[in-house]
Amino acid sequence: MTDQQDQNGAAGRHLQIGTFLFDDVDQIDVTGPFEVLSRLPNATHRFFAVENRPIRDVMGMRLVPDAAISEAPQLDILHMPGGPGNEPLMEDEAVLNWLRHQAGGAMAVFSVCTGALLLGAAGLIVGKRATTHWTTHHLLHSFGATAVDARVVRDGSYLFTAGVTAGIDGALQLAADLRGQSAAELIQLEMEYAPEPPFNSGTPEAAPAEVLAAVRLGDSELAGRRAATARRMAKLLGISRT
Amino acid sequence: MTDQQDQNGAAGRHLQIGTFLFDDVDQIDVTGPFEVLSRLPNATHRFFAVENRPIRDVMGMRLVPDAAISEAPQLDILHMPGGPGNEPLMEDEAVLNWLRHQAGGAMAVFSVCTGALLLGAAGLIVGKRATTHWTTHHLLHSFGATAVDARVVRDGSYLFTAGVTAGIDGALQLAADLRGQSAAELIQLEMEYAPEPPFNSGTPEAAPAEVLAAVRLGDSELAGRRAATARRMAKLLGISRT
Repeated sequence: MTDQQDQNGAAGRHLQIGTFLFDDVDQIDVTGPFEVLSRLPNATHRFFAVENRPIRDVMGMRLVPDAAISEAPQLDILHMPGGPGNEPLMEDEAVLNWLRHQAGGAMAVFSVCTGALLLGAAGLIVGKRATTHWTTHHLLHSFGATAVDARVVRDGSYLFTAGVTAGIDGALQLAADLRGQSAAELIQLEMEYAPEPPFNSGTPEAAPAEVLAAVRLGDSELAGRRAATARRMAKLLGISRT
Repeated sequence: MTDQQDQNGAAGRHLQIGTFLFDDVDQIDVTGPFEVLSRLPNATHRFFAVENRPIRDVMGMRLVPDAAISEAPQLDILHMPGGPGNEPLMEDEAVLNWLRHQAGGAMAVFSVCTGALLLGAAGLIVGKRATTHWTTHHLLHSFGATAVDARVVRDGSYLFTAGVTAGIDGALQLAADLRGQSAAELIQLEMEYAPEPPFNSGTPEAAPAEVLAAVRLGDSELAGRRAATARRMAKLLGISRT
């Protein structure tokens, strides 16, 4: 476990890993990476929310934060999940300031799904190569980022993943970056992660046309709101959307 | 979405899906399937625990149940996650009776990871083809089941999956069984489930030898306890372990 261990200066040092929780998060953006990162040697993984009370994921699952964001230490790893609930937070200056502060001092920023958009609203992804959920990929350039069509995208200390379950793949990559490939492989074996999706519908390219149309229709209201917010953000950030 | 919709007599009927929660569950056994099953049309997915208070997963994540098991309705789908915390429950008659009662009236019983062992302790897998986490696969026969080396195994109304993340694959299969393949494909696309594990270490066969040895060593204390419990269970169930 020594080959890549020192890549981020993480070797031997206890790591503070923190996930930002909010109502209407997509829970597996949180829980997929937690399954991996909470098992890293010599690390503590905790959840932080604006208020220290349980949050509800978009489908109703309730998760309990460990503390309020105001009580969080400087994190070594800032983990940003996505979900419809980050849309109203994109103009919440207290949250955006906390993210800027944490990201500024973190060794790694790990974005899952539409988490990239909230980081974008904080002005943190300008000039970066990034990815996000396929339904919002076209909005990345409003935040000054270059959209990359890949499941996991690294740019310096930032690691971005595509939608939802891509967080598991990204977290394993991050685990290897921080503690070496063997540490990541050990966690992968413990969680028996040798996926066999029973259907081939995990990307817009692979999904049957009527399935793709149904998802787009179901997403259209949120997509409209996200696009409007992205336009306002682009203006605020001084980005010309050409 | 009509091709397989009626396979379990589920068409058109509102489905009650329930997950049994307990301390020291492995959270992604819960949250992976919840990501899929909570999105089924015309269904309610809730969490039930012995007491209606937050539980802690084996790595410290806190999940809030919706009600105590004593308040649960007859479930259509009984979802049984695994994790080290089910070991002490294997001789808890109140829990075992609740499981027998629920399984007896359910349309489907869905076991993830070592959830199969707790179902086994309730005497529910005698004569069934089953699977579980690779570290406990050899214990299935103590409960009268035939161990099958597959990620997802169906036997009548029972669906068993291998360890941890296999619950996602099994839940997509179950979703298709209940609401048709298109419904499952839609959920798969929403959760962008087109996995790309960065390493090839998800099974004992694929993992590097030193990684496999490290997981076995880390698991040895729990494995010993589980084996002893399985021996007692085999005696109780009148199963000769040859």
